[in-house]
Amino acid sequence: MSPPTTARQWIVAKKPTGQVHLSGPDATFALEPTPLPALSPNQLLLQPLYLSNDPAQRPWIQAGTDPERAYTPPAKQGQPMRAFGVIAKVVTSTSGNFAEGDLVSGMLEWTEYTVVDATSVQKLPEVAGIPTTAFLGALGGTGLTAYFGLLEVGHCKASDVVVVSGAAGATGQMVVQIAKKMIGCKKVVGIAGSAEKCKTVESLGADVCVNYKDADFDSQLKKATDEFADLYFDNVGGKILDAMLTRVKREGRIVACGAISAYNDQSAGAIHNWFEIISNRIAVKGFIVTDHLARAAIAREELVAAFKAGKIQISGDQETVVDTKFEDIPKTWVMLFAGGNTGKLVTKIV
Amino acid sequence: MSPPTTARQWIVAKKPTGQVHLSGPDATFALEPTPLPALSPNQLLLQPLYLSNDPAQRPWIQAGTDPERAYTPPAKQGQPMRAFGVIAKVVTSTSGNFAEGDLVSGMLEWTEYTVVDATSVQKLPEVAGIPTTAFLGALGGTGLTAYFGLLEVGHCKASDVVVVSGAAGATGQMVVQIAKKMIGCKKVVGIAGSAEKCKTVESLGADVCVNYKDADFDSQLKKATDEFADLYFDNVGGKILDAMLTRVKREGRIVACGAISAYNDQSAGAIHNWFEIISNRIAVKGFIVTDHLARAAIAREELVAAFKAGKIQISGDQETVVDTKFEDIPKTWVMLFAGGNTGKLVTKIV
Repeated sequence: MSPPTTARQWIVAKKPTGQVHLSGPDATFALEPTPLPALSPNQLLLQPLYLSNDPAQRPWIQAGTDPERAYTPPAKQGQPMRAFGVIAKVVTSTSGNFAEGDLVSGMLEWTEYTVVDATSVQKLPEVAGIPTTAFLGALGGTGLTAYFGLLEVGHCKASDVVVVSGAAGATGQMVVQIAKKMIGCKKVVGIAGSAEKCKTVESLGADVCVNYKDADFDSQLKKATDEFADLYFDNVGGKILDAMLTRVKREGRIVACGAISAYNDQSAGAIHNWFEIISNRIAVKGFIVTDHLARAAIAREELVAAFKAGKIQISGDQETVVDTKFEDIPKTWVMLFAGGNTGKLVTKIV
Repeated sequence: MSPPTTARQWIVAKKPTGQVHLSGPDATFALEPTPLPALSPNQLLLQPLYLSNDPAQRPWIQAGTDPERAYTPPAKQGQPMRAFGVIAKVVTSTSGNFAEGDLVSGMLEWTEYTVVDATSVQKLPEVAGIPTTAFLGALGGTGLTAYFGLLEVGHCKASDVVVVSGAAGATGQMVVQIAKKMIGCKKVVGIAGSAEKCKTVESLGADVCVNYKDADFDSQLKKATDEFADLYFDNVGGKILDAMLTRVKREGRIVACGAISAYNDQSAGAIHNWFEIISNRIAVKGFIVTDHLARAAIAREELVAAFKAGKIQISGDQETVVDTKFEDIPKTWVMLFAGGNTGKLVTKIV
């Protein structure tokens, strides 16, 4: 079979201000064909197999974002939609380091095929018992977010009571495991959105997990944090952050990692308990994993070592892999904001 | 004249949930007589002359405050209203360290007369050119708040662009002076609530002061912070904090010192721009001056030295002294929340 000379790609057609639109005149994304160049030396023709879906892609495409203030350099209208992690198969290689059929990971786009320089992707190592998709999750951006957020930003230590929101999410599951099984924290409390998610979180080592959709969430949270929290790892912002501001210990710390509740609707993210930061002398630090990637290889090695020692789980259970036709990629992506997935949401292109 | 045996005092009659009420069935304060005990050895009979009025008194009397979470231990209903600083005259003394007519300062109450242990108050030093009321302001809690907030919490240095809100207030005026004249900051931007207040702030050394009541406040603030702020000293919370969250530099710092905008109406204090903390990796630290008072004497000496060297002003201009009948003390106090005063609001009992 001769290699393809064109590929379909999903472009950012209209940057949203409020909700993402899957169809209609304001559709956020559009499917377009693009020509594929012939390979120069040291290049690869790749076929994306798995796409990482990350809340951070949402601010990336937000309309009107000031490039100077953005989380990451904002998307350009008309350009392909980017994923923060993609696993792809090498179709053709002009590099001595890659062979046809190799699996690689990198910051790629929502394309059927793409041509890249061989230096821009990493060949996936093989570790017995670790599924391929873990390189988008537990050993990818989300696992590193948990690792660096706890250790380098939150200065987490064994004597800490740690609370993590979005605990059943990709980052949250790793926060629970690293805090409880690697650092040995005194108590780890998860916050998640269903009884089933909470069960998963407790199975990963959380002392207790509270369902924020329960009518008595506030009193459950109060009970779970009867000693207050030394460290709150916030993945969600909004009402849960507001509740947690009243449960962080005097001189406690907050790692501000995500605010998914506010990405599609800013008013849902309003914070009313700011004064708690003052009256309880709380320290808050905003944090983005990309600032810490210089130490990514070391962190990944520590995580793999903890896995091999049986301390933490890195399994397919931590990913929700959704079989998705290429033309349905945006539909799977918006599942992120419906709160339906447990662990990393991964698109498997079928 | 024989010493008084009873005194009137203002008690906290009904803790407010929303607005403070000056009269009616929900009146926050009530005037009551109390007997004065005879002096034991080493005691003083004091007559309060000047009362410090501080936003922090508001959360102190808030209904339903959890003592474990409060800024300071909450007020008890039926107990006298406390001021964070009072200057009083010694009427009678059984202590060798104090003579009739001496002026003292301490954490006293809204009383006509009071009997205290001599060790609980400090005799006021006399510094030529410094008015008595400065010991409630520039050399009292507010000046020390500015000093410790900038230096110990904000790690302020000469290369910083500093923004301070409530810049015409008692703390704000000292923040401006300490940042510009003592630390030598690159740029100091004030935010205040009138053109006149802004003039005062600029006269104290601010490079520019922006009036948040101007219709084009946002664009004025943007212009004043075209390089963004390294350090934001927040005295007000609410909408101004929300605006400033978009103007703090990547990896910048916020000293969370006050939230006066929200003390009487929590909804006015809602924060919508929390995500800026994440995307710009901002560090926020809540702060209360009482945690730093072990070094108060050193700080006060440095401030007096800067005054003697002509670097900073410590004058009656920084206080708004309101002549007030004893029965009108609450009326003067609520002026704090109307934004009418420039500098420290001091009640002079007449």
